[in-house]
Amino acid sequence: MNYAMIGYMLGWVCCFEAIFMLPPFIVSLLYKETSGSAFLITAVLCAFVGFIAVRKKPENRTIYSREGFVTVALSWGVLSIFGAVPYVLSGEIPSVMDALFESVSGFTTTGANIVTELGSKSSSCLFWRSFTQWIGGMGVLVFILAFLPANSHGSNMHLIRAEVPGPSVSKLVPRVRTTAKILYTIYIGMTLLEIIFLLLAGMPLFDAITISFGTASTGGFAVKEGSIGGYSTLIQTIIAIFMIMFGINFNMYYLFLRKKIKQAFQSMEFIAYLGIILLCSLVVMVNILPVFPSVFEALHHAFCQVAAIITSTGYVTTDYNVWPEFSRTILIILMFIGACAGSTGGGIKISRIIILLKGVRKEIGILGHPRGIKKVKMDGRIIEHEVVRAVNSFMAIYFIIFAISLLMISFDNFDMTTNFTAIAASMNNTGVGLELIGPEGSFVQFSNLSKAVLMFDMLAGRLELLPLLILFVPSTWKR
Amino acid sequence: MNYAMIGYMLGWVCCFEAIFMLPPFIVSLLYKETSGSAFLITAVLCAFVGFIAVRKKPENRTIYSREGFVTVALSWGVLSIFGAVPYVLSGEIPSVMDALFESVSGFTTTGANIVTELGSKSSSCLFWRSFTQWIGGMGVLVFILAFLPANSHGSNMHLIRAEVPGPSVSKLVPRVRTTAKILYTIYIGMTLLEIIFLLLAGMPLFDAITISFGTASTGGFAVKEGSIGGYSTLIQTIIAIFMIMFGINFNMYYLFLRKKIKQAFQSMEFIAYLGIILLCSLVVMVNILPVFPSVFEALHHAFCQVAAIITSTGYVTTDYNVWPEFSRTILIILMFIGACAGSTGGGIKISRIIILLKGVRKEIGILGHPRGIKKVKMDGRIIEHEVVRAVNSFMAIYFIIFAISLLMISFDNFDMTTNFTAIAASMNNTGVGLELIGPEGSFVQFSNLSKAVLMFDMLAGRLELLPLLILFVPSTWKR
Repeated sequence: MNYAMIGYMLGWVCCFEAIFMLPPFIVSLLYKETSGSAFLITAVLCAFVGFIAVRKKPENRTIYSREGFVTVALSWGVLSIFGAVPYVLSGEIPSVMDALFESVSGFTTTGANIVTELGSKSSSCLFWRSFTQWIGGMGVLVFILAFLPANSHGSNMHLIRAEVPGPSVSKLVPRVRTTAKILYTIYIGMTLLEIIFLLLAGMPLFDAITISFGTASTGGFAVKEGSIGGYSTLIQTIIAIFMIMFGINFNMYYLFLRKKIKQAFQSMEFIAYLGIILLCSLVVMVNILPVFPSVFEALHHAFCQVAAIITSTGYVTTDYNVWPEFSRTILIILMFIGACAGSTGGGIKISRIIILLKGVRKEIGILGHPRGIKKVKMDGRIIEHEVVRAVNSFMAIYFIIFAISLLMISFDNFDMTTNFTAIAASMNNTGVGLELIGPEGSFVQFSNLSKAVLMFDMLAGRLELLPLLILFVPSTWKR
Repeated sequence: MNYAMIGYMLGWVCCFEAIFMLPPFIVSLLYKETSGSAFLITAVLCAFVGFIAVRKKPENRTIYSREGFVTVALSWGVLSIFGAVPYVLSGEIPSVMDALFESVSGFTTTGANIVTELGSKSSSCLFWRSFTQWIGGMGVLVFILAFLPANSHGSNMHLIRAEVPGPSVSKLVPRVRTTAKILYTIYIGMTLLEIIFLLLAGMPLFDAITISFGTASTGGFAVKEGSIGGYSTLIQTIIAIFMIMFGINFNMYYLFLRKKIKQAFQSMEFIAYLGIILLCSLVVMVNILPVFPSVFEALHHAFCQVAAIITSTGYVTTDYNVWPEFSRTILIILMFIGACAGSTGGGIKISRIIILLKGVRKEIGILGHPRGIKKVKMDGRIIEHEVVRAVNSFMAIYFIIFAISLLMISFDNFDMTTNFTAIAASMNNTGVGLELIGPEGSFVQFSNLSKAVLMFDMLAGRLELLPLLILFVPSTWKR
């Protein structure tokens, strides 16, 4: 285990977090808020810790798969802990546990809410909440890799693989650093595009920026009560469309930029993703017709809710808690399905579900024709045996963590639907569930034990389980 | 596809079902009930259909894996349909759908209840309900194989493999027919043992026989309101212990009979099974202390409920719907875990969970040490790659069927906990869930669509998914 290199990378994470604290500080100056000092103090603290750690470059800068996972997991821990400090220092979220929860919920792009009165919070605090999501959306190590001098190629790939969602990561270009830069360019470009669209639709600048951060990262922290329910239908529709766009594999945008449009549209995951959204929007619309005065409103809210949930963003426009159980169940299932691999969205991911389904079809095929040898294919390419096996392990670990988490939070004695969807909303980074944690609810009512479990689940979900689990395996720490 | 042989086997199923109808007919004579004629008429009908089908022996009697699965799936369909006829003919369950549900619930050993007023039903009807469970417990094809003249060895193995629960089936002895006979001998012997114990504890003969049928098959149909809640503590304890005994892999009893006691006790699944029961009983006991007047009562009910749920029997002694959420969640998780492979119990099965956990540990190990090659082992033997793959497919199919079923029954607009546990209780053949389908509830309130879905789930659960799914794959039906 290359401890020196892990420490060095964590140092860079601290340095960058110090820089990340400056925008909220600037916001506090603009709005003449006293809470800004909390960000300045934390920034100095981060910078101090960071500089000590990066002062000495490690001689051996090679990172193997194991170090990659550990580095990513610890980075997110460090990010979250320092990210919680301004909440406590400014007194906006006095409880340390709640501040940490809000920070983890932000960086993991979950958007699970613990702050109940958004109106009483300072603008710098609201900005920081949204900004943590934007940082967490594409991944902080991907960000660092785009700026840091290049390591050996393999090392960086191990880091990206551990941080970017999906069953397999394809490099866009041979150089990992260039890949990271392209991903961030697309990310920043699309975020700016959304801000412009929202401004044109009449949204105030502060809301446009923060909501765009929340959309781009599929995070879902709002700056007003009732999520995005208070904005106009036009604004809600723009946000819904951007949520869907950020749930698409970023490789597709790269193919677009390279004018390989035909190739981009042939992706099976992409087609399935749009198909599911279309089908579910229509089915939910029909089911919720009695709840709304017009077909248009039913369609609008069906579409916005489906987009908010499948992309794991959680920008809901209405309280779907009161919808018929059929629509509620569709939303819960969408929560698990999630968005496309290689996007900022959470959940199990559509490509994993496709691989699972193809594996099942193959297995049933073998029963009928035991002598036929079939390979599982997707988009014309054979899916490697290792990928299929990794998807199976992912599912197994997913449901084991789910069951244990469900058991642990059931201590709080809330109803099963609340508990079940709380875990689902955390592990899939959706941030909103049913009953007590529905669109009008909050996670603040859970005990500290439950909050700790949910934080673990959010991190496990964002990092796709393995990086976090590897921390708990004794053999990881052997030299 | 060897259609002639499938038809021939289905014919035998009908013939045997005609014989199975005689005991309830005798019961009706003993109790001087008019409902007996329904059983006689159905028996004649079954015999007639059966004789036509078995009159001509097929020339090619070879059954491949595909035919094995199809035969088993269709057999259970035929069994269930004819099994429902007496309910309708006698007028005890006038609705055809409800009668079919009760029949499927019986043969699949689910014990999901649709009859709300057990007191008003005839003894012959109650006897038939319990008897269908006893037939379904060990499997009707296993029964037929024990009596029919031997086919080629491979053929019978394909049938047993499709009908006996668990990730892999080991032949006790080289001859499949002898294996089937040994299994049934143990089954009959232990059922008789339970009847004797229950009689000694002061239970009426009729109750002792029917409840023993329900225990042996881990079915759980009761003959009085409130499941086994009305019997004495001694009787409840005897039933709980027998439930646990019938949840153990029958191979163990064979090893006992062969005096290989040390080998029997070394089974990892067996140790895990007892360990889970012990641990959960104690944890639930502590959690439900406030609900009961004494520690003894809390322990008794904790133990009985844990035994009833993990074995998928469902002979509950109290309404655990009112227990704290923590205990309710433990019971739900136990429902999924289920009993041992090769027992009459349902659920995912402990050996599958062990294989999953070992697979996950291996996968995490690979991340840390990519060059190390490890094999997954259980009880000192290497688990074949095919078994691991089959377990993974099983889990994938399981959760896909679960999600689709959940969606379909949500149309009825019941709460999510009811829906979720209804599917869990059906697919794991437990027969009792939470809220509306808890110990005091009934499945009668579901719509016909939901009942059809739940019947499918019960059959899918009892036959461990694949035999039923293969019916819906077009390539199965190609010659």
